[in-house]
Amino acid sequence: MPAKTLDDMFFDGVKDIYYAERQIVKALKKMSRGAKDQALKAAFDKHLQETEGQVERLLEIFELLGKPARGKTCPAIDGILEEGSEILEEFKDSDALDAGLLAAAQAVEHYEIARYGTLKAWALQLGKPDIANILTVTLIEETKTDEALTQLANAAVNSKGKPKAA
Amino acid sequence: MPAKTLDDMFFDGVKDIYYAERQIVKALKKMSRGAKDQALKAAFDKHLQETEGQVERLLEIFELLGKPARGKTCPAIDGILEEGSEILEEFKDSDALDAGLLAAAQAVEHYEIARYGTLKAWALQLGKPDIANILTVTLIEETKTDEALTQLANAAVNSKGKPKAA
Repeated sequence: MPAKTLDDMFFDGVKDIYYAERQIVKALKKMSRGAKDQALKAAFDKHLQETEGQVERLLEIFELLGKPARGKTCPAIDGILEEGSEILEEFKDSDALDAGLLAAAQAVEHYEIARYGTLKAWALQLGKPDIANILTVTLIEETKTDEALTQLANAAVNSKGKPKAA
Repeated sequence: MPAKTLDDMFFDGVKDIYYAERQIVKALKKMSRGAKDQALKAAFDKHLQETEGQVERLLEIFELLGKPARGKTCPAIDGILEEGSEILEEFKDSDALDAGLLAAAQAVEHYEIARYGTLKAWALQLGKPDIANILTVTLIEETKTDEALTQLANAAVNSKGKPKAA
């Protein structure tokens, strides 16, 4: 068997993030249902729509690669989303639930930012600027989503910044 | 049982990242041994030293909280590191190994950036500025490490940016 190449690694990466995005669609629906704060729920709903568009962009990439669209189980996103499910379960009656959901969403965003940044660099290295451009559109969306979540987190800090009396 | 609070969530998060950092120490040793490029190996070794310092800082935080230092299994970091192990295994004879290790390290960094950013926000919200300051030191280190890895990735793009002849 010949040694695997960067092309193989790139294709594995596309399959990995395709699997991940579809798991994220399911998770965002649950997180939106769980969120109590309307601004947070709206942020999840907006990102759900974006994520569906990101799946479409990946289908376009499979097509440009001339390969069938197929996911590859991604233990990283499974682990990250498992922590989100634990929060939903363990903190369901807690005032802190929204803070936990926000944190879970930011962990997801950062995973995606890392992966899309890597895939974009590899696409350029492999001489596929058309695919790199598609990945860049998603990378910018993910970065903006993370910034929006950080603003929600900071708003929570500023509004509840004082410790409760013991 | 009373509903869990943001304090509980914060303490869970500290235990989670304490577990994660100790797994990362082990993983960085393997990644440094696997890396072929000397600059990448040096980056892993430098970050290994930093990570050991980050574990120390977490011990300081446990002390400030007046709680025993104990990890909590973190499925997210387990999944992220599992993907790194797969790369080490599947691409061990490949020229693309370093690119894969670099990508794995960036996924780790982004997980840490997300988690330390969240923990810092919660520490401020809970009125623990001393702990927030300690977390900020680590957050800045992680961000710089990610930037250094991005520079190595871009250098690879620039030096090998042309597709090989078919």
